[in-house]
Amino acid sequence: MNISNLLQPKKIAVIGASERGGSFGGDTCRNIMDFSNPSKYYFVNPKRTEIFGQKCYNSTDEIPTNFDMVIICTPQSSVIDILKQSKEKGCKAAVVYASGYSETGTVEGKIAEKELIETCIQLDIALLGPNCGGFINYIDNVYSFAFISEKRDRKGNVGLISQSGQLCLSLMDNPKGKFSYVISAGNSSVITMEEYLNYLVEDQNTKVVAVYLEGVSKPGIFVEALKKAAIKKKPIVVLKTGRSEKGSQISASHTGSLSGSDKTYDAIFKKFGVIRVNDMEELLSTAHLLATIKEYPKKARLASMNLSGGETIITADMAYSKGLNFPDFTKETLNKLNQMLPSYATPNNPLDMTATLSYDSKKYAKALKTVMDDPNIDMVLIGYTLLLNIADPCIYYMTEGIEKVVKEGNTKPMAMIPYIENTRNPEYTERLEKAGVPILPPVVYAMEILKKFSDFVEYNSENHTLELALPKNTRLKTKKFLSEHESKTMLAKAGIPVPKEQIAKTKEEAYEIAKETGYPLVMKIESADIPHKSDVGGVKLNIKSEKELGQAFDEIMNNVVKNAPEAKINGILVQEMLSKGLELIVGVNNDPIYGPMVLCGLGGVFVEIFKDVALYPAPLNHIEAMNMIKSLKAYPLLTGYRSSEELDIEALTDLIVKVSDFAVKNKDKVVEVDINPVFLYEKGKKLSVADALILIQE
Amino acid sequence: MNISNLLQPKKIAVIGASERGGSFGGDTCRNIMDFSNPSKYYFVNPKRTEIFGQKCYNSTDEIPTNFDMVIICTPQSSVIDILKQSKEKGCKAAVVYASGYSETGTVEGKIAEKELIETCIQLDIALLGPNCGGFINYIDNVYSFAFISEKRDRKGNVGLISQSGQLCLSLMDNPKGKFSYVISAGNSSVITMEEYLNYLVEDQNTKVVAVYLEGVSKPGIFVEALKKAAIKKKPIVVLKTGRSEKGSQISASHTGSLSGSDKTYDAIFKKFGVIRVNDMEELLSTAHLLATIKEYPKKARLASMNLSGGETIITADMAYSKGLNFPDFTKETLNKLNQMLPSYATPNNPLDMTATLSYDSKKYAKALKTVMDDPNIDMVLIGYTLLLNIADPCIYYMTEGIEKVVKEGNTKPMAMIPYIENTRNPEYTERLEKAGVPILPPVVYAMEILKKFSDFVEYNSENHTLELALPKNTRLKTKKFLSEHESKTMLAKAGIPVPKEQIAKTKEEAYEIAKETGYPLVMKIESADIPHKSDVGGVKLNIKSEKELGQAFDEIMNNVVKNAPEAKINGILVQEMLSKGLELIVGVNNDPIYGPMVLCGLGGVFVEIFKDVALYPAPLNHIEAMNMIKSLKAYPLLTGYRSSEELDIEALTDLIVKVSDFAVKNKDKVVEVDINPVFLYEKGKKLSVADALILIQE
Repeated sequence: MNISNLLQPKKIAVIGASERGGSFGGDTCRNIMDFSNPSKYYFVNPKRTEIFGQKCYNSTDEIPTNFDMVIICTPQSSVIDILKQSKEKGCKAAVVYASGYSETGTVEGKIAEKELIETCIQLDIALLGPNCGGFINYIDNVYSFAFISEKRDRKGNVGLISQSGQLCLSLMDNPKGKFSYVISAGNSSVITMEEYLNYLVEDQNTKVVAVYLEGVSKPGIFVEALKKAAIKKKPIVVLKTGRSEKGSQISASHTGSLSGSDKTYDAIFKKFGVIRVNDMEELLSTAHLLATIKEYPKKARLASMNLSGGETIITADMAYSKGLNFPDFTKETLNKLNQMLPSYATPNNPLDMTATLSYDSKKYAKALKTVMDDPNIDMVLIGYTLLLNIADPCIYYMTEGIEKVVKEGNTKPMAMIPYIENTRNPEYTERLEKAGVPILPPVVYAMEILKKFSDFVEYNSENHTLELALPKNTRLKTKKFLSEHESKTMLAKAGIPVPKEQIAKTKEEAYEIAKETGYPLVMKIESADIPHKSDVGGVKLNIKSEKELGQAFDEIMNNVVKNAPEAKINGILVQEMLSKGLELIVGVNNDPIYGPMVLCGLGGVFVEIFKDVALYPAPLNHIEAMNMIKSLKAYPLLTGYRSSEELDIEALTDLIVKVSDFAVKNKDKVVEVDINPVFLYEKGKKLSVADALILIQE
Repeated sequence: MNISNLLQPKKIAVIGASERGGSFGGDTCRNIMDFSNPSKYYFVNPKRTEIFGQKCYNSTDEIPTNFDMVIICTPQSSVIDILKQSKEKGCKAAVVYASGYSETGTVEGKIAEKELIETCIQLDIALLGPNCGGFINYIDNVYSFAFISEKRDRKGNVGLISQSGQLCLSLMDNPKGKFSYVISAGNSSVITMEEYLNYLVEDQNTKVVAVYLEGVSKPGIFVEALKKAAIKKKPIVVLKTGRSEKGSQISASHTGSLSGSDKTYDAIFKKFGVIRVNDMEELLSTAHLLATIKEYPKKARLASMNLSGGETIITADMAYSKGLNFPDFTKETLNKLNQMLPSYATPNNPLDMTATLSYDSKKYAKALKTVMDDPNIDMVLIGYTLLLNIADPCIYYMTEGIEKVVKEGNTKPMAMIPYIENTRNPEYTERLEKAGVPILPPVVYAMEILKKFSDFVEYNSENHTLELALPKNTRLKTKKFLSEHESKTMLAKAGIPVPKEQIAKTKEEAYEIAKETGYPLVMKIESADIPHKSDVGGVKLNIKSEKELGQAFDEIMNNVVKNAPEAKINGILVQEMLSKGLELIVGVNNDPIYGPMVLCGLGGVFVEIFKDVALYPAPLNHIEAMNMIKSLKAYPLLTGYRSSEELDIEALTDLIVKVSDFAVKNKDKVVEVDINPVFLYEKGKKLSVADALILIQE
């Protein structure tokens, strides 16, 4: 089935057409009459002959021509028959508003959805929905949408896909909402979210893709779409739900989607440069920023120009709290500004211009251009709260100044930041937008959005391995731990360095091994049934002599017999005693949907207490491994903290890459890898894998 | 001088009155004509006889009566003379707009400000400013303000004090801005910020105090005002700048204020239950929330009612990310909701009501009341994006439903949360506000505000020692470290338990001490000149015999002679070897303005890497000490993490309280205390002060 048949139909039949407000049929017809060319639509309803003055047919049979797409406004029970009848008329696509499918969480609902999917596959019909609000194609003016909004031109370059219909409507209700496509995908059970995403990533009329996402059903297509966007550097802004347990629960009953692990999505979005936002305000405003500014800079080193000292200080504080900073202006810029500003002003970035310059458009333009021309600056933020009713005329001069600079060419991107939410004057909003200046929401939001913008523009797809190691779709049922020695042996085969160790089945064997290895030694019970060896008294450290070795052997065996009587014992592992380094953890969580996610963090209790862990999808290269390490709060401990030496970061990146490769190669077998602790030593002295635990499925 | 003379004057003279727009004189007169009773004002300008139809006098002499207050619209050079002339006419208060004082950062500016202050003290004139925008008293309709805003009724119950004039104007420009007082305090060099704060805390017409604060000059009055507010539980919402270094720098040049340490302010605000916000949007919206809802609950357990699944999920996610949670409804509530909602809906908190109920005001009221009556719920959030132009009629039914519930009495607080910033319909905004329902900004802001609201309503002043140990105003110049032994001796005198230790001046003395103490031992160089003993090789641990002791003595001495040849040595400290516990740090930073701040956190490198430190002003009691400990991220390590034992938290609170008492008693002497590490042991086994360092001033 072909998604273009759905989103770019030439002739459309509306089944269940009516004039009744608040009904799918009535509101769809009303929308068509308001926004689309009625000659492209046929209305069908056996009870009517005319709708809003246009002919209404008894049935699809009576429609004089074939049609590509059918909008089904009638209840669930009628859907399958209508699809079949429509097929007779050449129909290749359908929109189904009706609910009652998998989102109900009932067996009946799930069966109905399965039947719907199978029918569509059989008939080769690309279906939007069910349980959806329809879609609008603003490029070709196709209006197949069940909700009423204010009559207004909304054609723009943001492509919106949403698993919530209300969210589409809210974004359309906002003056910032300018779209190429709005797609309310509902359960997205035939054509899926990721297929719409892929379509919009490829669509030339769409500059920015905005997505409200509850879950993904075809990870392969999802990853392909993200990869294409990363390479093109087309921004995808995603509001992905499921950060909270409650949110995930409600998601599951909303469109029947399973969210998957939230942290996995964060990791994937990082790899592909996807912008993840927190709420609808951020979704719309980030998309609006990316859609409105004309060219994306390579970096986002910001300048800020304000009319008051207080507002300048607030801007500095909040930018700092979001990890943004305002670089210093060059001496040349400062000199020029000093000449323009009143004597009591101190030029700085962020800049308190004082109000004086903003009452003269030429002076304002000159100051703006001066800041813009600073080589340390990539983008200029204009701090000003635009009101609905203009009381202070300075916005007139400021806008004129901005327009002057834009007209003269060679501008850098600009955005306006209000200090308080307020009604915004539509005339100036439009003029600023035309000049490529979006108005962001107030400071806290604005700084969050700009941080994401900054990350986006600095994202370079060449530094990332743009693929995931997606697992086969079958999950095996039996999971089991490997013993420490088995785990290490498996890792060693993959080129991961593990310390010397041997299994002693008897005390005598232990003595022999010790002669070879030398003291001090470590002894650990070796059993796949005892993943947590310390808990059963199965570990003895710092054994210094044959005598101590003998005692330790007996003690471990006694402890294990007592504490884990049913465990199958391979023997006792005799290892060289490793010198202690910085304790780290390197591991793998194999996500059932997206495959192995590699993790790295500070070891010990601190992983869990401070959650200072980097997670990133395999496969990955050395740059990506390095960026994982750098993203840790504990990173300064590795680079030579206070009087301590720099540690062997190269060895650590190497380990991470090898673990990633190992996980990719074994993606259908290895469920978890936990190398904990890794001892990281001083630069040049590498690291040691002190313990390892692998969980496999069979 | 009396602040009431300034803020509640009966008769006012305006010097430099004019009709010229954009000038202090012109805009002040324009404001008076627009908003105040002109019979209370006299205009003075030798160049005019009439202003906007009202008589204008040549000089203050000519004014037929005495006046209480003078508004000086003329430049800096004229100010002192006008104050003197006004005094002749009984004047007790003045507003000075002119700039050119300490905010310039110049010597001239500082001299001018000093002269101004001295003149006011001499003449007993309560002065607002200089470098300010004036004030408005909405209660008595006194309008002494230099900026023009839209003509509109703004009388309400938020008292605003700001060190930025533009900020006052922006808050007044917003429809949410409803005030008792607006005070643009400028440099606040005569009547200070904290005196305005104190006034508004006491003012019966002010329900909420909102403050934009760059710095404080009279900490005693500041603390008194905070204490009064804490006891009354009158909310103070503060936008305190200086979170970032840049922000602090610009602050310093803006009103000549010194911010003080930002973390100190956080600690003080915690003690007194002050609400600290991030930007102007939060300042206004938090104040608006607190001003609009009729009664504050004791807790803020929230329910959320939304019209769509997507919006419900976003609400759940964002609340979670801010540390808010929605408690489950009782079975009774769920049963009732199940009967009201369509079959496909799953009641939950947050609640996806689906759109159905919102098109019938009775049904909506019933659902709202059901949620409100749940005993687990203290406050109801209504998720809805109100538009300027109403396209969807549901807001009509929802508002009617809300009004119905309010009319029937016994309501719990409500607030509306939009999902996107937008223009808001004024009619419904007003009706909702009248019903006690404020409209908050969109979700990210709203959840941040509600978290602060929740902390505020749960704040109980009885659990806090509502005072600070303010230091004397004189800072002593000579600072010096005490040696470890001197530091511990000083702490021991204050009842803080320190381990056994003695100073050995010779090796022989060391042997003698060792006989008494027993092995293993620790030896450390004892010198006030060596605060960081390890760095010079001055520490030896785990000494097990007389032989090792002799070697260690020599090594330490040799190291110190080599590495710190100029240090005065008291000998070598011989201590029992302490068993290791969890490493913590307890300390004191004596803030030059606000006195000792007690700190507690995880020891070692983790203090600095993870910044997991609690800071709280002395004096403090056991509840406050306990709350400091609980606020640490590392707190789970103390309560029995995984298989480890619970630690002696009681001993730790006890230590914190004793250190606080010690710091209070020595507030003018002790600059810093650093007890690091403290070893905390299992419950019942107390703790050990392993090392201590005190910095004193003389």
